[in-house]
Amino acid sequence: MNKVYLDYAATTPVLPEVVEAMKPYWNEKFGNASSLHSWGREARVAVEESREKVAKVLNCDSEEIIFTGTTTVSDNLAILGVLKGVIEKWEAGREVRVRSEEKLHLITTQIEHHAVLDTFKYLEKQGFGVDYLSVDKDGLVKLDELEKLVRPETVLVSVMYANNEVGTIEPITEIAAKLQSYKALHQTVQDKVSKFQSFKDSKKNIYFHTDAAAAAGFLDLDVKKLGVDLMSLGSHKFGGPKGVGVLYIKKGTKINPITFGGHHEGGLWPGTEPTPLIVGMAKALEIASSVQRLAFSKTTVLRDKLIKGVLEKVPEVILTGHPEKRLPEIASFIFKGVEGEAVLLRLDAEGIAVSSGSACTSGDLRPSHVLLAMGIPQEEAHGSIRFSLGRETTEDEINSVLEVLPRVISDLRKMTPKIS
Amino acid sequence: MNKVYLDYAATTPVLPEVVEAMKPYWNEKFGNASSLHSWGREARVAVEESREKVAKVLNCDSEEIIFTGTTTVSDNLAILGVLKGVIEKWEAGREVRVRSEEKLHLITTQIEHHAVLDTFKYLEKQGFGVDYLSVDKDGLVKLDELEKLVRPETVLVSVMYANNEVGTIEPITEIAAKLQSYKALHQTVQDKVSKFQSFKDSKKNIYFHTDAAAAAGFLDLDVKKLGVDLMSLGSHKFGGPKGVGVLYIKKGTKINPITFGGHHEGGLWPGTEPTPLIVGMAKALEIASSVQRLAFSKTTVLRDKLIKGVLEKVPEVILTGHPEKRLPEIASFIFKGVEGEAVLLRLDAEGIAVSSGSACTSGDLRPSHVLLAMGIPQEEAHGSIRFSLGRETTEDEINSVLEVLPRVISDLRKMTPKIS
Repeated sequence: MNKVYLDYAATTPVLPEVVEAMKPYWNEKFGNASSLHSWGREARVAVEESREKVAKVLNCDSEEIIFTGTTTVSDNLAILGVLKGVIEKWEAGREVRVRSEEKLHLITTQIEHHAVLDTFKYLEKQGFGVDYLSVDKDGLVKLDELEKLVRPETVLVSVMYANNEVGTIEPITEIAAKLQSYKALHQTVQDKVSKFQSFKDSKKNIYFHTDAAAAAGFLDLDVKKLGVDLMSLGSHKFGGPKGVGVLYIKKGTKINPITFGGHHEGGLWPGTEPTPLIVGMAKALEIASSVQRLAFSKTTVLRDKLIKGVLEKVPEVILTGHPEKRLPEIASFIFKGVEGEAVLLRLDAEGIAVSSGSACTSGDLRPSHVLLAMGIPQEEAHGSIRFSLGRETTEDEINSVLEVLPRVISDLRKMTPKIS
Repeated sequence: MNKVYLDYAATTPVLPEVVEAMKPYWNEKFGNASSLHSWGREARVAVEESREKVAKVLNCDSEEIIFTGTTTVSDNLAILGVLKGVIEKWEAGREVRVRSEEKLHLITTQIEHHAVLDTFKYLEKQGFGVDYLSVDKDGLVKLDELEKLVRPETVLVSVMYANNEVGTIEPITEIAAKLQSYKALHQTVQDKVSKFQSFKDSKKNIYFHTDAAAAAGFLDLDVKKLGVDLMSLGSHKFGGPKGVGVLYIKKGTKINPITFGGHHEGGLWPGTEPTPLIVGMAKALEIASSVQRLAFSKTTVLRDKLIKGVLEKVPEVILTGHPEKRLPEIASFIFKGVEGEAVLLRLDAEGIAVSSGSACTSGDLRPSHVLLAMGIPQEEAHGSIRFSLGRETTEDEINSVLEVLPRVISDLRKMTPKIS
């Protein structure tokens, strides 16, 4: 049985070139990048060269890049760190009281990855004002809603670059432009009306963060074109090793650390830098960036073949996500009348790896919050399956899926009592 | 020139067996441990088997082990997480006000690693009551001081297992016993006197955390013998890869996450688990544990040779740290009348890697907070150098140091204007 891995959006194999690039750093060039001797300096050079590589792909200065542990850390640091920056002593009693009188306001979307969504839910519990932008049936964030929600107290907006479950690409550039014009228009008014004296300076900005974990590898990561102030990236979604993440922080952004213990990464992510992982991640990003156009078109062709085949061969199926504005590697479906987990396990038994919802929530039996936000009824949302392709995906693999899947769905439908 | 690495306390090379153990997980068994398909289950098995290996070394249940990003993360999560557990909504206005009226009390030492020290400094700024235990001239924590400081409001005590700069081993078991008897004696009284109604339950415990980063690899890590509730470990200090840490959390400990985004690691450290690193770290710990006795005695012999040689061959030198209660791998000295950094760079030029202070603060020009706490005058503290040995260290390497060092110190003393 040929095994077919179509869950690249959950994690990718590390590229052979990346394994090779990490190799000398395990026990030859193994120094601590904070050490002053030659072993340390060698590691420091590797870390800083990697930072430059990443900065080049993101079209920013290397000082605007910090390395973290995971995308989840990057998201948390971006959101909690910026808030801490805005409210210098946000946990001290006085500020908390001030805050609760004149709630600082945050905006995100209903379809974020849990690393962003759960952080905002936490902040909401802590008394911050949080609004969750809704999306249309294709998973596109509603821009007119953003316009209505943004207000003088808004300090942070976080919208994912592309959705990891259905693949819809969000209008990041347009959101950035809207926030810019809001800021320009309301700057004077805002200064006049705010009673929130101590935070006036920081309120002159609405920081805009995007989680680009799902986008990396296939979409353009130019932060200037995107117009974002902060951007989170992982590593293991584009052929790099697990255990390292990236956070872009635009120069001038007020941000405080959320953990403590050293000067590493500008004091924002203390702890010994994992040189091999940083080197590997930078290498993977460099490769992904260099083959991006080719990968985009190749993957789009295969994905479209998959979509076309599934829609033709399987009855009672819905393609989820935006028909055009979508990641080239993701094809998500709802198979009516079956459970996604059952499909996943049956496909697994046939050697095909897919996901029901995102890998991070696969253990969770609740239907995807993304599909629910898109207006898909709960009973249908249970039948969702995500196929995600990689640069390594072949036409033969797609053919295998198109051969196996119709039978699996048909078998399951026979076994499952019809949901009325 | 033969290069001599004597900075194992800053970081160690990854053991060849560990590199080998990680190998299949880069791009063969590369699944996301949260995925339900066979790739994911394979990764999950690897993670859970690693957890069992670590638990075995620590003599605890595997559910009491979580994997984090670094020792720094483990320390932060232990301290901030336990506090968040004690005060469920510690950032909400009401609790902060209650807290500031009847300050929760925390105890640590003056000689902690910055990952612990800076976290407590942060909490102190936030309004918590923090006491920093002082140490004697050998770097031993003063137990009588602990007895005087502990009080009904004390919720957390954090004392490092062994100091990373001078190698002094702290009396962890004795501290645990003292905290136990305090709790037993004062339980009833405490319940009666506390006005702090909402936290009464949690105040029935004083959580005891230890940072065992420097101890791992040479000292016994049995958490039951030590009597701790929480213990932080790194990976790259005992032959494992950088980018992964361990936190032992005794069953029943109330602890909340400090970052958000998923169910990983019991919800306490969300983010995709770095399978290769976890596998590698567990392998390294297993090896370290199996050769620990041998490594202890072999390293002690070499270290004693180094100490004896340095004290004989270099005039005006002080050995820092406890004469007996010390890690086998650390020999720290103060060379009077010279700058530690100058010694470090001169030794580096001769191919010998050492540290002035800990690697994490090598970039910092302030004298070591550890040496100052031990009562060493500031001008002398500037002349500190730490040699730290590894299991790989040879007698020839020690001989090289004993040949080069006296000349380096003598040369520098000639160049440096005498500090009066």
